[in-house]
Amino acid sequence: MKTRAAVAFEAKKPLEIVELDLEGPRAGEVLVEIKATGVCHTDAYTLDGLDSEGIFPSILGHEGAGVVVEVGPGVTSVAAGDHVIPLYTPECRQCKSCLSRKTNLCTAIRATQGKGLMPDGTSRFSYKGQAIAHYMGCSTFSNYTVLPEIAVAKIRKDAPFDKACYVGCGVTTGVGAVVNTAKVEPGANCVVFGLGGIGLNVIQGLKMVGADMIVGVDINPSKEEWGRRFGMTHFVNPKDHGDIVAHLVELTGGGADYTFDCTGNTTVMRQALEACHRGWGESVIIGVAEAGKEIATRPFQLVTGRVWRGSAFGGARGRTDTPRIVDWYMDGKIEIDPMITHTLPLERINEAFDLMHAGESIRSVVVF
Amino acid sequence: MKTRAAVAFEAKKPLEIVELDLEGPRAGEVLVEIKATGVCHTDAYTLDGLDSEGIFPSILGHEGAGVVVEVGPGVTSVAAGDHVIPLYTPECRQCKSCLSRKTNLCTAIRATQGKGLMPDGTSRFSYKGQAIAHYMGCSTFSNYTVLPEIAVAKIRKDAPFDKACYVGCGVTTGVGAVVNTAKVEPGANCVVFGLGGIGLNVIQGLKMVGADMIVGVDINPSKEEWGRRFGMTHFVNPKDHGDIVAHLVELTGGGADYTFDCTGNTTVMRQALEACHRGWGESVIIGVAEAGKEIATRPFQLVTGRVWRGSAFGGARGRTDTPRIVDWYMDGKIEIDPMITHTLPLERINEAFDLMHAGESIRSVVVF
Repeated sequence: MKTRAAVAFEAKKPLEIVELDLEGPRAGEVLVEIKATGVCHTDAYTLDGLDSEGIFPSILGHEGAGVVVEVGPGVTSVAAGDHVIPLYTPECRQCKSCLSRKTNLCTAIRATQGKGLMPDGTSRFSYKGQAIAHYMGCSTFSNYTVLPEIAVAKIRKDAPFDKACYVGCGVTTGVGAVVNTAKVEPGANCVVFGLGGIGLNVIQGLKMVGADMIVGVDINPSKEEWGRRFGMTHFVNPKDHGDIVAHLVELTGGGADYTFDCTGNTTVMRQALEACHRGWGESVIIGVAEAGKEIATRPFQLVTGRVWRGSAFGGARGRTDTPRIVDWYMDGKIEIDPMITHTLPLERINEAFDLMHAGESIRSVVVF
Repeated sequence: MKTRAAVAFEAKKPLEIVELDLEGPRAGEVLVEIKATGVCHTDAYTLDGLDSEGIFPSILGHEGAGVVVEVGPGVTSVAAGDHVIPLYTPECRQCKSCLSRKTNLCTAIRATQGKGLMPDGTSRFSYKGQAIAHYMGCSTFSNYTVLPEIAVAKIRKDAPFDKACYVGCGVTTGVGAVVNTAKVEPGANCVVFGLGGIGLNVIQGLKMVGADMIVGVDINPSKEEWGRRFGMTHFVNPKDHGDIVAHLVELTGGGADYTFDCTGNTTVMRQALEACHRGWGESVIIGVAEAGKEIATRPFQLVTGRVWRGSAFGGARGRTDTPRIVDWYMDGKIEIDPMITHTLPLERINEAFDLMHAGESIRSVVVF
């Protein structure tokens, strides 16, 4: 079949909208019509050539929502007509990781996914006879895409695609870091570093679970209004303080119970750890650091009770937890609508990257 | 009253055995006759002048066991005749830390303890009219010592002093890191870096809780026999492997569920983290690093699910958990006797430091 898609033919060049050839689903695969897709920093990171493992030509996009059109042989968990979110973190429920009960990082198809291929080692996309790589197992910048059955989360049918798509990455990453990774309890004092889309979703996750103090930290004062919109109780601009760690420890009455790094800056990651309360404070790294950068601290920080951990896809099991987050949105426990600052047709997808680079969007969504 | 004690008059000099003046217990304090005390690396660290906050003259020693002789006004939890272990980590059960339920690091008397003083800001020891500092709130190198009520753990009377004293630091630090800090579950695959006294106690803690694979790592091949004696199932000498992390990940089938650093070496601490299993492996820092040294890793290690934490006094609440560890020893769940490689009278205490510096002891105990 044919599908309209935005193709990344090479790094550092705008995406090109073309008609591609798409092969139908093989065994264990599903064909999904993508109705909407967010444009995330990770897509930009790859397109900008910063990911040393980036593959071109490829179809980017990993934050989508759509409808199952056709299923391949052996597929039992979804059927044509189901509404789904593609999962860059699949959930096979059978690998060592899924069975550990301790992680969401399913390894069933990791090797082929990293190579831009379906689990059988081939691509379903081609253009003028040349194979085009899949991206993060999703490729949501295509109107139709093929996904492994274990990489789609079935969601309720009344959720709007142009909002639910954001659950495919940003919302789950932020809210899930609070709920699944840190397991923040009511009454906790928390600090969130970086008030972009992820930081705002951490904030609303903290609000949902009943945190007492939700301190937002950002060097951009215009972020204060955004933070307060979603539940932030205190705003701190590091530029106003000589020793940001000392200030946060004082503000939180001895240090935070939980801190979250949503910046990707390794210096900030250290501050986030050291702003934790002696004895029990836990710091969660969500941001992705530049290649080669390292985090550091004195081991005394850990020996005296602080804990350093990280979160990927909010610690959420793709098929199990993602639909629940969509439910939380539909039930009004969390918000998505105000974070979708721009909605564009596929033809204008490159504008979404421009808005992001300029810091002028929380989230842009492309609709088909 | 008078007491015989080994006094550290200055750094880098042998201890001197002298008769001191000891004032009796004030309100909330107890007078304890020390029957036996271990000599620990931390005592040597201070005596060697490596602790920038070390105070002289002082009475070192923090790993003791003895009998309550007299209690001051208001003391209700212990009485004359009780057998006790002095606690350098007290347990007031009333401060923010004790009430958090999340840490053993009671802060009730931290400020004065760090200054070598009793909670009221004075010392009970003096020599020729000059005040002598307390050490870690214990000063077990004195036949009699005064301790805050919240800094003594009441233990059973049938436990031998010359073995129970080791529970006051080394045993609890190692076994507790397994039980309280890591909370290792049966069947776990674990790696212990450094097979000194702490490492051996981690190993026997792992054996007690039913770990499957207990890998010991040490550059000294003579440690293998010691490790196996207490439950180690595999021995690895890093000198036999180019990439110790890769070797351990392979040996443990993808990485360890839990690793423990008992070396104090920050390079080893990094290896311990990176030898953890992707998704859930947790690394616990027990060793105390040199002043100024830092730990580092790529944040990706944490984002993909590894957790970095530390343990002080094995995460054990002093008055609540320490007596249980003595019970475990008396019940045969853990061993102490074979680790006490040397037993000496107070007059020969400096030999214990020599043995430790030469690496020729697991633990030396001084008996009064």
